[in-house]
Amino acid sequence: MPYINLKITKDGVTREQKQQIVAEFTQTLVRVLGKKPEHTHIVIDEVDTDNWGFAGMLTTDYRTGKR
Amino acid sequence: MPYINLKITKDGVTREQKQQIVAEFTQTLVRVLGKKPEHTHIVIDEVDTDNWGFAGMLTTDYRTGKR
Amino acid sequence: MPYINLKITKDGVTREQKQQIVAEFTQTLVRVLGKKPEHTHIVIDEVDTDNWGFAGMLTTDYRTGKR
Amino acid sequence: MPYINLKITKDGVTREQKQQIVAEFTQTLVRVLGKKPEHTHIVIDEVDTDNWGFAGMLTTDYRTGKR
Amino acid sequence: MPYINLKITKDGVTREQKQQIVAEFTQTLVRVLGKKPEHTHIVIDEVDTDNWGFAGMLTTDYRTGKR
Amino acid sequence: MPYINLKITKDGVTREQKQQIVAEFTQTLVRVLGKKPEHTHIVIDEVDTDNWGFAGMLTTDYRTGKR
Repeated sequence: MPYINLKITKDGVTREQKQQIVAEFTQTLVRVLGKKPEHTHIVIDEVDTDNWGFAGMLTTDYRTGKR
Repeated sequence: MPYINLKITKDGVTREQKQQIVAEFTQTLVRVLGKKPEHTHIVIDEVDTDNWGFAGMLTTDYRTGKR
Repeated sequence: MPYINLKITKDGVTREQKQQIVAEFTQTLVRVLGKKPEHTHIVIDEVDTDNWGFAGMLTTDYRTGKR
Repeated sequence: MPYINLKITKDGVTREQKQQIVAEFTQTLVRVLGKKPEHTHIVIDEVDTDNWGFAGMLTTDYRTGKR
Repeated sequence: MPYINLKITKDGVTREQKQQIVAEFTQTLVRVLGKKPEHTHIVIDEVDTDNWGFAGMLTTDYRTGKR
Repeated sequence: MPYINLKITKDGVTREQKQQIVAEFTQTLVRVLGKKPEHTHIVIDEVDTDNWGFAGMLTTDYRTGKR
């Protein structure tokens, strides 16, 4: 009964990329742990870079070098 | 001190449905565990079907039969 | 595709209480939102009262009146 | 390796407030636990008041006194 | 800045299996999204089968056929 | 209505350290956002270093230099 929550920054991830991630994560759990695909749920949260803190600052600021 | 995070697909859930869910979940915790309503928080996340993986594919694809 | 994470303090909750909670939460989602039971997962985390902060203090301290 | 998920109601929190929260939470973990800032991630979820249940009702209703 | 939370039932998962899962999930994010391994954190929660509800019952009961 | 989930590695964090973290996080939310302490919940999860993946490996391995 696996459940995965993936949090990534909102950077224009495409449907194809999401499909690829979901397919690969599921395959890993099937192959390594013998889990059933129909018991495997994956929720992807795309987080605004203003809402992701890293190293004490917002990721937006981290990326623009405002450090 | 209960905290609930409910994740569902974004399918046009109405305010009335959310009110009903919050009321019933809280009643269950009060009745079964003796919790206080004013200590009970419930966060509902509505997730785009492109962001919910199930059975190795996106829920959007799963529903449209693109399997 | 609902997923629920319930966090409660570790207070000797019994199997019967967990069964009751899981049954009722699932029934609520089936009745109010038309969800399928076999797509509904509920994870219960029982948290030590030293690991649950409330009102600026640990729940252990809050309960013993060390406020 | 700390990871923090902060959930707050969506009430027009500003960038400056987010910067302040991220800076202070990180400083607390560095000072109290000796964590490294570059290993510290903080995700802020701003939740619509219709999606936050409190005391058995939606926060929107709780605030407008529909109790 | 990806963060993954993987929840699985506590079924005697070995260190080698955890290593394999962490390596593969990270590789997927590096290959598909161009993420940096040193920004990628994965937390694995192993959940007692009495604490995982599925299809309206505890997983322990679901598995022993007490349906 | 803030809710915080803090995940840290299980490294012998003391009660005093937890008290300090809970007090400071709550003070930050009160001061910066005007939140009420009695609406602020903080759950601390201490994660075994074998269950925390970082940079593609388990934190246990990362720390012992098995890179």
